[in-house]
Amino acid sequence: MNLSPCKKANVLIESLPYIKSFHNETVVIKYGGNAMINEELKHSVIKDIILMKFVGMNPVIVHGGGPDITNLMKKLGKEARFIDGLRVTDKETMEITEMVLFGKINREIVSCIGANGVKAIGISGKDGGTFKAKQKNAELGLVGEIEEVNTDLINTIIDKGYIPVISPIAYGSEGETFNINADEVAGRLAAELNAKKLILITDVKGIMKDQNDGSTVISQIKIGEIKKYIDDGIISGGMIPKIKCCYEAVKGGVERAHIIDGRKPHSILLEIFTNEGIGTMITN
Amino acid sequence: MNLSPCKKANVLIESLPYIKSFHNETVVIKYGGNAMINEELKHSVIKDIILMKFVGMNPVIVHGGGPDITNLMKKLGKEARFIDGLRVTDKETMEITEMVLFGKINREIVSCIGANGVKAIGISGKDGGTFKAKQKNAELGLVGEIEEVNTDLINTIIDKGYIPVISPIAYGSEGETFNINADEVAGRLAAELNAKKLILITDVKGIMKDQNDGSTVISQIKIGEIKKYIDDGIISGGMIPKIKCCYEAVKGGVERAHIIDGRKPHSILLEIFTNEGIGTMITN
Amino acid sequence: MNLSPCKKANVLIESLPYIKSFHNETVVIKYGGNAMINEELKHSVIKDIILMKFVGMNPVIVHGGGPDITNLMKKLGKEARFIDGLRVTDKETMEITEMVLFGKINREIVSCIGANGVKAIGISGKDGGTFKAKQKNAELGLVGEIEEVNTDLINTIIDKGYIPVISPIAYGSEGETFNINADEVAGRLAAELNAKKLILITDVKGIMKDQNDGSTVISQIKIGEIKKYIDDGIISGGMIPKIKCCYEAVKGGVERAHIIDGRKPHSILLEIFTNEGIGTMITN
Amino acid sequence: MNLSPCKKANVLIESLPYIKSFHNETVVIKYGGNAMINEELKHSVIKDIILMKFVGMNPVIVHGGGPDITNLMKKLGKEARFIDGLRVTDKETMEITEMVLFGKINREIVSCIGANGVKAIGISGKDGGTFKAKQKNAELGLVGEIEEVNTDLINTIIDKGYIPVISPIAYGSEGETFNINADEVAGRLAAELNAKKLILITDVKGIMKDQNDGSTVISQIKIGEIKKYIDDGIISGGMIPKIKCCYEAVKGGVERAHIIDGRKPHSILLEIFTNEGIGTMITN
Amino acid sequence: MNLSPCKKANVLIESLPYIKSFHNETVVIKYGGNAMINEELKHSVIKDIILMKFVGMNPVIVHGGGPDITNLMKKLGKEARFIDGLRVTDKETMEITEMVLFGKINREIVSCIGANGVKAIGISGKDGGTFKAKQKNAELGLVGEIEEVNTDLINTIIDKGYIPVISPIAYGSEGETFNINADEVAGRLAAELNAKKLILITDVKGIMKDQNDGSTVISQIKIGEIKKYIDDGIISGGMIPKIKCCYEAVKGGVERAHIIDGRKPHSILLEIFTNEGIGTMITN
Amino acid sequence: MNLSPCKKANVLIESLPYIKSFHNETVVIKYGGNAMINEELKHSVIKDIILMKFVGMNPVIVHGGGPDITNLMKKLGKEARFIDGLRVTDKETMEITEMVLFGKINREIVSCIGANGVKAIGISGKDGGTFKAKQKNAELGLVGEIEEVNTDLINTIIDKGYIPVISPIAYGSEGETFNINADEVAGRLAAELNAKKLILITDVKGIMKDQNDGSTVISQIKIGEIKKYIDDGIISGGMIPKIKCCYEAVKGGVERAHIIDGRKPHSILLEIFTNEGIGTMITN
Repeated sequence: MNLSPCKKANVLIESLPYIKSFHNETVVIKYGGNAMINEELKHSVIKDIILMKFVGMNPVIVHGGGPDITNLMKKLGKEARFIDGLRVTDKETMEITEMVLFGKINREIVSCIGANGVKAIGISGKDGGTFKAKQKNAELGLVGEIEEVNTDLINTIIDKGYIPVISPIAYGSEGETFNINADEVAGRLAAELNAKKLILITDVKGIMKDQNDGSTVISQIKIGEIKKYIDDGIISGGMIPKIKCCYEAVKGGVERAHIIDGRKPHSILLEIFTNEGIGTMITN
Repeated sequence: MNLSPCKKANVLIESLPYIKSFHNETVVIKYGGNAMINEELKHSVIKDIILMKFVGMNPVIVHGGGPDITNLMKKLGKEARFIDGLRVTDKETMEITEMVLFGKINREIVSCIGANGVKAIGISGKDGGTFKAKQKNAELGLVGEIEEVNTDLINTIIDKGYIPVISPIAYGSEGETFNINADEVAGRLAAELNAKKLILITDVKGIMKDQNDGSTVISQIKIGEIKKYIDDGIISGGMIPKIKCCYEAVKGGVERAHIIDGRKPHSILLEIFTNEGIGTMITN
Repeated sequence: MNLSPCKKANVLIESLPYIKSFHNETVVIKYGGNAMINEELKHSVIKDIILMKFVGMNPVIVHGGGPDITNLMKKLGKEARFIDGLRVTDKETMEITEMVLFGKINREIVSCIGANGVKAIGISGKDGGTFKAKQKNAELGLVGEIEEVNTDLINTIIDKGYIPVISPIAYGSEGETFNINADEVAGRLAAELNAKKLILITDVKGIMKDQNDGSTVISQIKIGEIKKYIDDGIISGGMIPKIKCCYEAVKGGVERAHIIDGRKPHSILLEIFTNEGIGTMITN
Repeated sequence: MNLSPCKKANVLIESLPYIKSFHNETVVIKYGGNAMINEELKHSVIKDIILMKFVGMNPVIVHGGGPDITNLMKKLGKEARFIDGLRVTDKETMEITEMVLFGKINREIVSCIGANGVKAIGISGKDGGTFKAKQKNAELGLVGEIEEVNTDLINTIIDKGYIPVISPIAYGSEGETFNINADEVAGRLAAELNAKKLILITDVKGIMKDQNDGSTVISQIKIGEIKKYIDDGIISGGMIPKIKCCYEAVKGGVERAHIIDGRKPHSILLEIFTNEGIGTMITN
Repeated sequence: MNLSPCKKANVLIESLPYIKSFHNETVVIKYGGNAMINEELKHSVIKDIILMKFVGMNPVIVHGGGPDITNLMKKLGKEARFIDGLRVTDKETMEITEMVLFGKINREIVSCIGANGVKAIGISGKDGGTFKAKQKNAELGLVGEIEEVNTDLINTIIDKGYIPVISPIAYGSEGETFNINADEVAGRLAAELNAKKLILITDVKGIMKDQNDGSTVISQIKIGEIKKYIDDGIISGGMIPKIKCCYEAVKGGVERAHIIDGRKPHSILLEIFTNEGIGTMITN
Repeated sequence: MNLSPCKKANVLIESLPYIKSFHNETVVIKYGGNAMINEELKHSVIKDIILMKFVGMNPVIVHGGGPDITNLMKKLGKEARFIDGLRVTDKETMEITEMVLFGKINREIVSCIGANGVKAIGISGKDGGTFKAKQKNAELGLVGEIEEVNTDLINTIIDKGYIPVISPIAYGSEGETFNINADEVAGRLAAELNAKKLILITDVKGIMKDQNDGSTVISQIKIGEIKKYIDDGIISGGMIPKIKCCYEAVKGGVERAHIIDGRKPHSILLEIFTNEGIGTMITN
């Protein structure tokens, strides 16, 4: 970049109010979609998170799954079945899911952060009894929903200066392993950790009046308006669970929840450090 | 068991000197072999470890791999190749290994401890930069050996009252993932953590003068005698790397290292809480 | 004992739920009667208490007087007078009582614990202003009842890893020294320290329907039933003050109070570590 | 500034290595010259310092005097006398100096930082016995040099999250008040506080081969070369005490000392956050 | 003094109840008047304060201005104007006031305490944002009244063993500097710091029934009686703001406020360490 | 006392340098002789000690036995036997000694301090394993000498604000109880606690050139001169063990040891708070 040093200094100075306002605050980031697949985007997200850490914020990462689970299932000759977009999860599928989420994706994120000079700790809901789940729906098998959260371990990890990287898996009261929707985990944790912000990294520009027209992104939605947007069909399909998590987080005390476009480099920084904002913000 | 309460009380009283002597001491346990496969033995090991925790010791678990890695490789149509008993590990094999070790076996141990009412945290060398590795031998690919250990995270986990469960994986200086022999990790950690004891759970009765005669177990070996036992062919094959780890641990300040028979229920308790001892003890 | 190591391991494993449930909990033990006179029983009690300490409980000992006071009075040519079983205590008797309780019995207990490798601290209500008393009844002279408890010193002693050994003596507001019933001290301290359990070591099998028939021990009494047992004459004589202390302790939040038979070796362990229970338990 | 958000994000990301490398490090800034007089420059310096604080550094400010002292002396009808550029300081001059330095300039800096939302604490060497001085030269009167530094108070101020603002005044062993050269104070403190960097804000572009040609700034000088530069006349006059302070700081363990041009906005940021560097750097 | 050692010992012993009762208690001292001008009285006050510190109290000093402000104004050819006894304060006057209060008087007190071997820290309301003020009255210009107090910095100073010396200056919400009446600051701080005592050092014997007859000092006034004393004209003129501060302090929880005669050596000690009391005490 | 308040204030001010110099310092006081028998002297000593505590010193009391032991032995029809002035101590005598020292004298001191509003804790060498002893001489039976000191418990007691009151009793490695000379305990503890001063309260005016002439007290003895004083017969008899303890303490780093006359009221204060000193001071 050919910016003069002086312009660079100005950019830094302009970031000061944002740094101040997030000082010592927790920001929960749901990391998923293309930003987890494309190598360049991946590094862009990790760098954003490391910058957040160094300027005094406490980023907490919850990652989703991506296509790796389905890939491994295929290789193992196992067919994926879905009901209403949710994967039917039998014991073997759960085992594959856990291996991929915790044994592969979580590892990649922890490694990538480590390679950038910050220490990360990967955990799932099983570690330190961080969260407990119950079955969502008998038909879906081992798909769970969170029943109980214990933030002790995450707070210890933050206090010691590490970045927590969380896989959306937990056990149930009978010792079963449940797979949980990562958006749901992120929303709930944001509320439980008194986060200032929840950021969902997605593959869309935000909530759009017209799905085919990126210029129709709605920049702000109050939680009171959500129902109407759903009734009007503007929020639909896979966006519904996302907006619900935002709703739960904001209800639970999080100031702002954001649905941003992870296909754009440094989208987290753009959201946090500039006035312009990107994507859709959900507030009270 | 039909023991009278009075006899039970006597057993507890007899355990007192052992409890005293291990109070607040760290014991590193290499968990592997049948004790990790057989359901009943598995529960017996976990209960032993939980008892250790509750009576004031700090158990640290390092687990090995077992047949699951080879199984998954087979299912994925990948052939395992070995040189001198060590698995040749290309990038794809490493990925499979990490998914199985950290995404499956580590999870099972953490879950099982949790189900018994104690909180465990699963980590590999990647979390918190706990250990760094380098390539052992170019032919073997991503088989590593430990270069550097940072015990901060493990000590934090212990201080907070959790049990650390460690997968023998680490990254190298170029960001590669290395698989490391679990015995080697256990031996090195025992030394670095100033453990009082290292326990290797194996599928043999100990070091035997005659491999076919369980009554010839050598109950104690001083580290000065190891070379002779190797020269005499009494220690050979897969036992050589195990004895080397014991040697390194004892050299590094660990009081005693034990090679015990994990096929016997409660073998850890027998080792720690009774005079009789089991298997082979290596001392200075 | 000729138990196999394996059976021993089983006993330890069976004790685990009890150890868990008392982890970091305070247990107040009123130590008196034969268990304080018979050398063998004495060592049995002390060993039980040390085991409790090492497996993570916080035992607090309150001791009574026994025959030593009367013995020394006799040797000094002083006649003991009793009203309703309580010793009339003039200034000289109080001096003798304090010398025997704090200068002899307390010392023996502290020494005996020390000889078993645990550090104990002997205190009376005078040390650190731990408790203040007032006269119970003018006729009885310097027999006191507790007015006020300050648990700071006892908590400091516990926090530093010592076992507190408490003599039932306190001063009054005029600087007088009062002798207090040890059961009363134990019951009150159990409540003030939020103890989980109060154990009164006595010379009877418990509360019995027929005093002459050991097989009629009542294993559990709810505090609401106490009045009826007294009215029926089943609880009478010296048992009345004991049951009152249990009542006060349980009212004050202690989960369970026990009247156990100190003439049986390891009676404390039997009570704490086995399902069978011994003596009479008083609950809410 | 019309930079695109994306370019802004890039600037932030580019600053990351600098932020990392100064994390939790102390930087001593000698604040003086035009940057203390010109309103716009003043705000630019303060903003730079606040940014440093928020991104995790510990800035420590030592301020000089500027023309205010001479102004007040004039108003009070007192003539300033100089020997070799140093002000001859009698008791009355010292009183005026202290009023201006601590009662005016220090106040302005503390206020200005406070107005930007960070808490500052103004101290001189007298507060908390932070430093003691002795007379430099009898002819100069109450001009002192530092004898002893006690960093307790400054460290307390930093630990509590405040920014220390230090006036270069101290008392002597007889209770006299001494005025000390601010560069000297900054250099000595940098060494005593184990600062990573010392920055002297001046009214020149740095050390120049030709004083009249700004393009001849020497970007780096090793402390071993200083003598030669002085002998060659390149470092002369008022620059000599400055270079000496840099020398002392670097000798005392400070990694780098910088003589920068305070007439340029955000000169501190340019120095810390960009590769380009400005002014002259003195290293070991 | 020719007292026998024995009499001295008795004096110390007699002081014990006073020392006990002020142990670890905060005492706010408004230091002003002759006691700040006369050299001998000055040392007497400082010694009293140091003695208080060493015997376990926490003295907090708030100083007033005295004639130095007017003197410097005169020298600078600036005329002082007063309305109802309060100085009209324009920006230039404020600058002079701050230089004198914080740059001269505060320094003298800090130095004098330091010379007696105790470390003091001088602050004004600006340091650490200790207090914020607003304009009292537009006519008076920059005369302020306290709006908000933050005791963090003062508590830190006390905790670290230093004595805080406070100049009655603060900024307003627009960044203006305000001069505040020192009595008002002392009274407010006494309440905010939960001080046990507030001592106003004045140049009168106390509140007197007849201003010209020192024997008519009223030794105690309850806050309920103040109105009547004002209505009766016994409290009037400059004493009214002083009694108001005492009223505010006592209302705010301070046990006793005292108006004492600073012209008498060791008046603070006489007040604190003897039964006799001096001056007028205001209580609830 | 008819001193004017002003004279009282002067006495307090004169005490300031002494208070400063002993701030936070430990002073070990061997309490014995008439000062422990005469009621008035007893209260005078306790008040001195309480004053020391409140003005910031850490007094540690070691008490001796006095005539009470012999009295109780007589009453019990037991004859006291002495060899070279030391009591031959059989098991029964030891039991009597412990009851009197710890069960009576220690209690009286703790009570008396408590009645003056300060909390004391009575301990002997047995509590917290504070010191261990061995037999001094087989002929003397259970007379011990200190082998090992553990200051943890005493330091805990001091840190928590209590005054430790120590009985000179300890156990040996076989569990025997030993009686130890109180001077010896005081001297050793003074060294182990890094005390600034050791004060032995005796029934003589100090070390006198002529035992019959109180005006011949030697005010200062250097430890190098002790031998000569013994050779010359000036130090003899019961003074020899006392001077040896002083020697050991001073050798062990205690600044000054004092042999003072406890028959004079407030002798401790006179020693600590006045220039005049009393008795004999032993220094390096």
